[in-house]
Amino acid sequence: MDDSTPRAVTMRDVAQAAGVSVSTVSHVVNNKKGARIGKDAWERVQRAIQELGYRPNAMAKDLVKGRSRFIGLVADVIASTPFAGQIIRGAQDEAWRHGYVLLVANTEGNEAAETEAIAMMLEHKVRGVLYSAWYHREVELPAGLSETDCVLVNCFASGSDVPAVVPDEVAGGREATRMLLAAGHRRIGFINTTTPSPAHDGRLEGYRQALADAGVPFDPALVVDARPEQEGGFDAVGPLLAQEVTGVFCHNDRVAMGVYDGVRELGRRVPEDLAVVGFDNQEVIAAHLRPPLSTVALPHYELGQVGVRVLLGLDAAADDGRVVVACPPVHRSSVSITAPA
Amino acid sequence: MDDSTPRAVTMRDVAQAAGVSVSTVSHVVNNKKGARIGKDAWERVQRAIQELGYRPNAMAKDLVKGRSRFIGLVADVIASTPFAGQIIRGAQDEAWRHGYVLLVANTEGNEAAETEAIAMMLEHKVRGVLYSAWYHREVELPAGLSETDCVLVNCFASGSDVPAVVPDEVAGGREATRMLLAAGHRRIGFINTTTPSPAHDGRLEGYRQALADAGVPFDPALVVDARPEQEGGFDAVGPLLAQEVTGVFCHNDRVAMGVYDGVRELGRRVPEDLAVVGFDNQEVIAAHLRPPLSTVALPHYELGQVGVRVLLGLDAAADDGRVVVACPPVHRSSVSITAPA
Repeated sequence: MDDSTPRAVTMRDVAQAAGVSVSTVSHVVNNKKGARIGKDAWERVQRAIQELGYRPNAMAKDLVKGRSRFIGLVADVIASTPFAGQIIRGAQDEAWRHGYVLLVANTEGNEAAETEAIAMMLEHKVRGVLYSAWYHREVELPAGLSETDCVLVNCFASGSDVPAVVPDEVAGGREATRMLLAAGHRRIGFINTTTPSPAHDGRLEGYRQALADAGVPFDPALVVDARPEQEGGFDAVGPLLAQEVTGVFCHNDRVAMGVYDGVRELGRRVPEDLAVVGFDNQEVIAAHLRPPLSTVALPHYELGQVGVRVLLGLDAAADDGRVVVACPPVHRSSVSITAPA
Repeated sequence: MDDSTPRAVTMRDVAQAAGVSVSTVSHVVNNKKGARIGKDAWERVQRAIQELGYRPNAMAKDLVKGRSRFIGLVADVIASTPFAGQIIRGAQDEAWRHGYVLLVANTEGNEAAETEAIAMMLEHKVRGVLYSAWYHREVELPAGLSETDCVLVNCFASGSDVPAVVPDEVAGGREATRMLLAAGHRRIGFINTTTPSPAHDGRLEGYRQALADAGVPFDPALVVDARPEQEGGFDAVGPLLAQEVTGVFCHNDRVAMGVYDGVRELGRRVPEDLAVVGFDNQEVIAAHLRPPLSTVALPHYELGQVGVRVLLGLDAAADDGRVVVACPPVHRSSVSITAPA
């Protein structure tokens, strides 16, 4: 491709075509208050803008205002899961709704790239920056972010007053456990993750709360920590069935997928021999397992959306800086409607 | 959050701190050739920039040059698959390598959003626009894109000379079929998609070429079209086994996942009773099936990367405007090493 571009249409071209002065065109383009322009001249300018395809220079306009219409979004990983994509989509839809454009930078955990991305955003005078993680975790706030408004999305920084929009892990764990309780299960296993994280602690707390609410005593033998992938779920099936568990809450949908394989390997069936509930509602997996997986949704779209709303001052954070977003249950067919004998 | 921001550090602040004139600071900041500035003054300015945290206004600098450091990327869907994320990541890494920043807009198939996104990019004087689709398909080029350099990524526009970077579906289909042929299989089924697409036609052509190269006659009874999801694969297993097929090439990894379930349902095993090859190499699925799935990778990262290279004139398109990117085989454990009897 060659490096030349067609000469851009200028305000001068518009003025010439409309038979008015450049300053008249400028007043029309910038919708200047108090400028006296006749209806006829105003219409001629609009027509010339249409016909010539004149595009006002957004950078020049932003420069005059001293601030751009950009909101920055720094994402740690967007390549290997659809999660970050949903955060981006939620943030973008909400940004557009308020006349902003999302500038996305993806760092893949590279600190130099992150510093550079944030510097670029500051140079472009962004309205603020959303700093997001693909899984809910504690982060250290990059230094550059103190120079602009910032909202953390799906992460938080301890000892900082920067607002943090995070999923309600405790309520999510409660919802998942309740799906099994509601079907009559009493010996309910929980395959938690081996990764120390808010998800690990919050979902366990929710599991315990739901059991307590239902008057079912907590039995630590029914909780196992496993690698949060298919393999971790597969290996946990034998030990849990040996504990006479009839339903299991899995840390995520991938673990649940491994549980399905483990149950089949033993010649048993979901949900007849073991009811299964996941977490995430990862579309390519959850809806298409046999039977389709009952799970709890991680609200990535909403996290991005609420992040923008907090940044723009449309939603307020709690006193501790947190904004929690609900994780709703998604009912499919992996929990039997009546409890096994 | 309140709407006030701390007063930005200006060039005047830097000049005062360094004890030089504003024009000297400007010359240092813009690295102006021919300006005579003493080493001592130059260092004082640099130190003041550091200490005060002065950030040159990127928009102002770009405006002077009449072109920004942005490359636009319009993506149709980024929410529900990791594919678009990988295209974005590839494009972004390559853009950064050449001093550009990627402006991402996601339209979710909404034509009004698309028109607005492209207009926004043109207003910001982008260096050019990558227009991408999450699955390889024909698109109609939006009108606004004729005003800037454009490269299509994972899509193409018939009758247009706009360069199109696309996966090599034919070679990918050949690779998948060869994995089964190399293991000694001769009755090889192909579960293709019901969606008319370059993937449908190209992979079928590759399957036929590989069979012909190996001297295996093409048997249309071994090719079935199915919904490109787990359910489509599940339902195809019975009919294919009735045709005494020993290996099957699946249109994508999700179909392969359904085939695994169908094989188990009949009390049979992968790969002993049926060898399986997928397409996509979708990380959350392929590597974690039991047994791990042999497949062919769709090179989304490379599509984004090559898209930027073509836009910047670093890679050239063929005479027909196409740039094809290879789909490499990924060997795991779902193809037996010796053919079943």
